[in-house]
Formats: sequence, C-alpha cells, structure tokens
Amino acid sequence: MSERLEQRIAEQALQYVVSPPTGSDPVVSFGSPAELYDVFDRSIGMKIESDQEPCADDAVLAAVESVLEYSVHTSHPRFINQNFAGPDPVSVVGDWLGAALNTTGATFEAAPVFTLMESAVLNKLAVVAGYPLGEDAQELPPGLFAPGGSTGTLFALQLARHRHQPDIVRVGSNGDRLCLFVSDAGHYAAVKSAALLGIGMDAVIKVQTDAGGAMRPEALVQEIESARKSGLVPFAVIGTSGTTVTSAFDDLHALADICESEGLWFHVDGCYGGSALFSSSHRHHMAGVERSDSFVWNLHKMMGMTQQCTALLVKDPHQLAPCFATGANYIFQPDKKHGEFDSGDRTFQCARRIDSLKLWLAWKVRGDQGFADRIDHAVRMADHTRQRIESSDGAFAMLVKGDFTNAVFVWVPPELRPLALSELSEDDRNRLHRVPPLVKARMQAEGTAMVGFQPIHGVNTFRMLYMNTSVTVEDVDAILAYIAKYAEEAWATVAEGDDA
Amino acid sequence: MSERLEQRIAEQALQYVVSPPTGSDPVVSFGSPAELYDVFDRSIGMKIESDQEPCADDAVLAAVESVLEYSVHTSHPRFINQNFAGPDPVSVVGDWLGAALNTTGATFEAAPVFTLMESAVLNKLAVVAGYPLGEDAQELPPGLFAPGGSTGTLFALQLARHRHQPDIVRVGSNGDRLCLFVSDAGHYAAVKSAALLGIGMDAVIKVQTDAGGAMRPEALVQEIESARKSGLVPFAVIGTSGTTVTSAFDDLHALADICESEGLWFHVDGCYGGSALFSSSHRHHMAGVERSDSFVWNLHKMMGMTQQCTALLVKDPHQLAPCFATGANYIFQPDKKHGEFDSGDRTFQCARRIDSLKLWLAWKVRGDQGFADRIDHAVRMADHTRQRIESSDGAFAMLVKGDFTNAVFVWVPPELRPLALSELSEDDRNRLHRVPPLVKARMQAEGTAMVGFQPIHGVNTFRMLYMNTSVTVEDVDAILAYIAKYAEEAWATVAEGDDA
Repeated sequence: MSERLEQRIAEQALQYVVSPPTGSDPVVSFGSPAELYDVFDRSIGMKIESDQEPCADDAVLAAVESVLEYSVHTSHPRFINQNFAGPDPVSVVGDWLGAALNTTGATFEAAPVFTLMESAVLNKLAVVAGYPLGEDAQELPPGLFAPGGSTGTLFALQLARHRHQPDIVRVGSNGDRLCLFVSDAGHYAAVKSAALLGIGMDAVIKVQTDAGGAMRPEALVQEIESARKSGLVPFAVIGTSGTTVTSAFDDLHALADICESEGLWFHVDGCYGGSALFSSSHRHHMAGVERSDSFVWNLHKMMGMTQQCTALLVKDPHQLAPCFATGANYIFQPDKKHGEFDSGDRTFQCARRIDSLKLWLAWKVRGDQGFADRIDHAVRMADHTRQRIESSDGAFAMLVKGDFTNAVFVWVPPELRPLALSELSEDDRNRLHRVPPLVKARMQAEGTAMVGFQPIHGVNTFRMLYMNTSVTVEDVDAILAYIAKYAEEAWATVAEGDDA
Repeated sequence: MSERLEQRIAEQALQYVVSPPTGSDPVVSFGSPAELYDVFDRSIGMKIESDQEPCADDAVLAAVESVLEYSVHTSHPRFINQNFAGPDPVSVVGDWLGAALNTTGATFEAAPVFTLMESAVLNKLAVVAGYPLGEDAQELPPGLFAPGGSTGTLFALQLARHRHQPDIVRVGSNGDRLCLFVSDAGHYAAVKSAALLGIGMDAVIKVQTDAGGAMRPEALVQEIESARKSGLVPFAVIGTSGTTVTSAFDDLHALADICESEGLWFHVDGCYGGSALFSSSHRHHMAGVERSDSFVWNLHKMMGMTQQCTALLVKDPHQLAPCFATGANYIFQPDKKHGEFDSGDRTFQCARRIDSLKLWLAWKVRGDQGFADRIDHAVRMADHTRQRIESSDGAFAMLVKGDFTNAVFVWVPPELRPLALSELSEDDRNRLHRVPPLVKARMQAEGTAMVGFQPIHGVNTFRMLYMNTSVTVEDVDAILAYIAKYAEEAWATVAEGDDA
C-alpha cells in the first residue's frame, strides 16, 4: 500500500462512479443525526476537534467509506425524489477534470481552454433554443454560467430592471414600485430574487394556473392591468417551463405576445423543462422560448450534469457588461492580451468554478441524439407510471394529469375508491394527508426507494419524476408496489388514530 | 483497453493530481484562441457541431489530453498569478467524492452526511474566528456556504439591510437612501452587491486608506458623518482583511468600535486574509473579527480548497431564515423527519453543490497544525521576496511595504535607480507602466512563470503572492530573475518606442 492517500480516496470515488448502488442495494442507509455521529465516531469523528490532530490514513479511508455508505445514492434507479438524479458518469469525470485543473472562469488568461469551451456550449445551447447569434458570438457568447437556477433568475431580473431603469446600477432604485409576474406554480426563486433585489416578495404577483399547472394567459393580462391601476410598475414576466410539482409548461408564445404588447421583459425559467428542447418529440413544450429576453436552464437537472451546471441565455449579451461590470483593473487589465474574451466582467461573480467542461465533454460523448434519448426515456417512464395509475382500479388516483416527466398522485384506501377528493370528509382528508410522510419514512428506513411528496389541494401527494436513464419499467412497478404496501399499512395506523 | 471511457478520463485526471507539472515544466502552454481552436480540431473540435455526433473514445481521450496540456497549471509553484494556487490534493479528491455522490446541500433528507459535515465545519470555523456558538449550533450552524466570496458579501449585505429594515424582504426598499462603507482598496464585490441589491454603486462610499492599504478609521468617521449630513442612511461597514493587491488588513477593532457607536452592521471581507486566523504567528491581523456581525471567508484561496469553498459566518444565525426563507412546502415539508436540520431555507440558493466535504476531509488529514503551516509558509515566501527586493541594489522597488503574503513592486531600469516615483518624467512613467504587460506576455509565451500585475499610482506593478505550499525560495529567486531579464529587454523596446 504505497499509494498516496489522495489516490486511495480517488479510487474509492471512482469505484462508486463505475459501479454505483443499484437493484436491491439500498437507496439510502438511513441514519438519524445521532446515529450518524456515532458512525463517524468509529473512525475520525464528525466534528472538527478543538485541537484537531491529523488523522491516520486508514481511519480517513474508513470515514470515506462511511461517507459513501450513509449518503443518499442519487444515481440509484429508485431515487425518484427530486428534479435531479442519475448523473452521467462522463459528467462526473468531466467535473473531476475541472477540479484537478482548479482555476477560475473569470479570465482567458487563467482559463484559456475553458473560456472557449464555455462559449462553445453557450452558443450551441442558444442554437438549440432558437436564440439568434451575433457575429461576435465567440468572443461574446449569448449568456453566462450561474451557480444554480435561483441565481440565474436573480441575474435575469437584474437585467430586466436594468433595461427598465438604465441607471439602476449606478444610483439604485428610482422609487418605482416595481412588480413582476410568475405563475402560482412557479419556482420560489422569483420571490427570493425579488427580496434580494430590494423589490420585495409582495411585488411578485402570482398568476392563476389552469388545472394542469400552466399559467392562464388571460389571468396574466388582468393582473398586469390591475397592477398598473394600483400604481405598481410592471417590469418582467417569468414563464415557467416545467413546474416543480407537475412539470407543467406555460404557453410561451402567449406570454411573449403579452410581454411584447405590454413592453415587459420576458424571462423563461426553464431550469427543469428547458431540456425538452433536446427532443424532437417534446420540444413543442418550449415553443416560443426563442422570443424570450432571458432563459435560465439547469443542465444539472434532466441532463444529468453534476451540481451545478446552469446556463443563463440572454437575447442581448451586450447588456451584460453595463449591468454587471466594474472594470477592476487588477484583473481585467486593459493592456492584457485577449482580454476581450474575459467573461468575469460580464457577470456578478468573480472567481467561478468551471461548470462548462463537463457539459462540453458529455455532449461530445453522447452527441445530440444521446441528449434527446435521455428526455425520451424520461417521458416514457412517466407515461408508464400514468398507465399503471390509470389501470390500478382506483388504488392510485392522479391529481394532475400531466404529459411530461412528473406523475403526481395519491394512494387511495379501498373504502374511498374511486377517490372523489372534493367529497372527502375533513377527517378522511386529514388521514390521507398523513400517509405520504409515513410512507416516505418507511422507504428511508428500509432503503427501498425515495419518492418525494408535497401537498396539493391540502393533501400530501406523491411525485414520481424521471431523468435517470437507468430507471426501468420494473423499477417503476416496484416503487408503486412499495407505495401501495406501505400506504396500506400507514392508513391502518392513521385510521386508528394511534400515530400521533 | 476494456476500461470504460469514464475510467480512462478519471485516470488521466488522477495522474495529473498526483504528478502535476512542476520544476522546468511549463506553467502554461499558451495558445491564442485561434491556436486553441486548431488544437482541438485535431481531435473532436472545440465547437459543439450543429448536428453533433457522438465522438469516438480515443478522440475524446486525445481532447482530454489537450485540455490538460493547454490549461494553466495553477498547482505549479511558479503560478504566482492570483489569490488561489496549489490546491491541496486531498481537497481535490474530496471534491471528486462529492461530485460522485452528486446531491444537493439543501436538505438533510438528500444530504444527511453533508448536512452534519457542513455544520461541523462552520462550527469549527466560528470557533477559530472567536464567534460565540449558540446551544443549538449543530442544528443551526453559525453561517452558511455560498458560491464564492462576492455572493457571500451579497448575502451579508442583505442581512445588514434586513436588520435596518425588517420588512425589506416582504415590501422592498422603504426609500431610505442607504449607503455603506468600504476602503478604497476593498474588493469590488461591495459595489457589485450594491448594484444587485438595488442600492446602487454610488452608495458605496470608498474610505481612504493609509500607505499600506488599510482603511483610515478616522476617515471612516468623517465619511459617516458627511453621509448623514447629506441625507444618506448608513447601514453597513465592510472591513477588509487581506486586500487584493497588497494583502493589507483593516484595523477590525477600530472599525468595530465605530460600528458599535454608529449602530452599523459590521461585515468583514476576509475572503483572502481570513485564513491568517489559522496561524498563531499571523492571526493578530484578524483581531476584532469576533466583533463583526458577518464574516466571509474563502477557503479556496489561501487554504488550497478547490473552487469554490466560501463560508459566510454570521453572529446571529436565527436571522438567516427570516431574511431568506420562503418555506416552499414541496421541499421543506413541515411533516418531514429531521427537517430542522435543513439548511436550504436559510439561504438564497436552492440546490447547492457540496462544498463542505473537501474542507472537512482536508482538515481531518492536515489537522490544525497543517492549516497553520500553510499560512506560515506563505508569509515566509513573501518575506524572502521582500528581502530579495530590498537587497537588489535598486533593481526592484517595493511600492507598498507589506507584512503578509503579497509583495508589490516594479523593476527599475538602471538609469532610474534608485527609483523616485514622484519625480519621474511623464515619459518614463509611461514607459515603466508598459513593461509589466510585456513581461507577462513573455512569461506566458515561454511558460516560465505567471505573475500578476496591476496599476498602483498609475504605474503597472508586479504582484507576487503566496499560498501554494510547494513554492520554494529557489522558485522565488528564479521568478525574480525572469522578471529582471524580461523587463530589461522590454524596457529596451519601449525606450526605443517601437512596440506600439
């Protein structure tokens, strides 16, 4: 064992990437915080001690084993818990390569290869989205990378405000009572961003959605009119492509029409659903995105890039520098070679992790078709789930009928089949609401699966959603069977009222 | 060669980590954008094609070789270019392990081990900084991780504004003409943040520094008074610990006194210099940081963590949720087990890369003493640089006398020795100014070293700064010799005026 510690840790990590837990392996070996502290006490302890000594190599390696064993296996086909799962192994090692070269994306000088790579990827993403490319698109790519979707939306809203009030950057808010619009199924990044921008959460007007979860365009028109009447100053509309719960898509053409006639910035939050663009069968959901002013797209969700890989495309990249630049002369020296390629003065961040390399590498390895296949597979699994639910004789009831990657449903106890949610007694509704958390806890305890849940119409519902290419119909069927089994037992408990 | 592509790429990356370029290996094999496009055309091309086909494994591996060959070798001891260099290999593989497990830090459910690890690291950092710990510090750690120092300062200023106006989050700015203070040597994150927050860059009042680059406290008092007189509403002061150019430290006790008597939020930007806290010989620079309300600290700078590893410590972590939370019920379900550990509703970001694991691992492997050694070594190299400059018979002239990691100096042509900057003719000053960019370009072209430069008093000056533990006094001497050689030749060129 003459290998250095870092090699041995790297080999543990590589082994995990090449042969991740699958099949009957647990999705998680769940430990409470107290149990996890105990686990690490057996090697090097979880806390950093007040006089921390260097730990012996073998103890460190044992701790790394514990990290691997007790973490959630997000690449397991039965991890159906969140809007990311199943990282592409090529992306993982692309991420590793970037970490090995550890530089910052801010300047061509420090990141010559990655500056061009970022430009290459942003240009291609823009083409996929139907964004026009300027003649200077290699030096000035049509967007930037951001550390996550919320931050991408934050930057987009600042660009929107900057168009509304070009001196905002210099003098701050001119006192206009700005407001913006997003559907009531849209992501909370909008309100978080409004708070941070100093606009305030109340200035985010939640527009009503239809039964499927898409914004009602006529409701948007009414909200804009009513906001103007009350003295507010609308400046932006966020269209949502792939909502968190039901993966619903707003009608982007309808929203673009309204933004054009009202003179509002049109931002598309396609963090989740933007990747539908890769598939000829599903890109119709995104029709109209090419008319947006900005479009944020998390490639770390459906496309299996590692955390994080967020592209913010912008229609007019010439506005990035006026909105974000400070021209710090110790780093963006005007007398430096190829400084025109520097991206750091076109965004908020200074030092930035390299997020483009893994996407570039995966794209080269998978090709356009490989990217399309990933989307098509995901929707196929969701279609299969919907079919199983429909043919379940009322054992499961879909609360929202979707046609993309998410299936949202409840398990129905025999005495309540077929489910008529609006006719449920308050007691039954409360009991039904209490089932999914119990099912979830049981899944975690047994490691059989992880499936998310959230309230819809006041009742906790399961959400199964797909993007991991290793999920099979057998996995879907097995997870549904676990839900039915655990839910039945949970219902017996809550029906007796002894779980409180 | 039956290994899968991802294994082969991982092995290329690991080989690089274990045996990085050093000694006479080039720091960079510099290519212009056009040259780099040509390089990649020999394997799989830089651009993503309009109909991108999957590339063959061997071509992909050749491209990975090009990525390694043409990127800047930031771990090379002669990369003295920026405020990061020489990643700790343990941090690199800790980063890899996190990417392999690819999850998000937002919830205990998705990141049980990492939630506790983040808490462990934040608690220890707080102890190192002298911040008090609450009784609930494990569940509610004294801060958060942010994607970079600028974002950490952004979050801190929002916390500051939130204390000034508690309903800011809900209703937006109340119209107060807020202003904040930072030294004129402070980082541009302050003005970028003010722009994004809607306060405006003009509201950032730059306080005069002394000759070394530290804020003059009496100037701060005057600026606060004068701001109040002109109707501005001061709300925060940023103390800088380790300025970008000269690694100067503001007197934090003096600033804390002023903030206390003026009722202002005291934020410390210790992104660079905060790590002085690890060394008993140098932590005196940070005296008073324990009195701050918030303190941002980039462990990816001096401590050799990979990009990015930014801790924002806060004195009152109970204010994080009121300032940032939205309580999204699809992810922070109130009926979920151990939800009190979820960090996602205490920060702006939703999905977050795991940045704590690599720091936790490195700390366990190196121990407190290993962390201290890193700082002590860095200052030793800077001291050696200063000695060489002082004993250079006027060949080099230090423009700012520092005592931490940065040495900032010019090369002086024989006819101008000893340098009297204020007495230089306009012509000589212009010529001197043009030398460092030429030296830099030559270093890049020959791959011999990379050293940053920036204008001070209108003249481009070299900045050598240290944090890479593999730098030796021989490296320092060799780099100074290159600077002298290249500068002499550059001077001959600019003196003849034929470089324009």
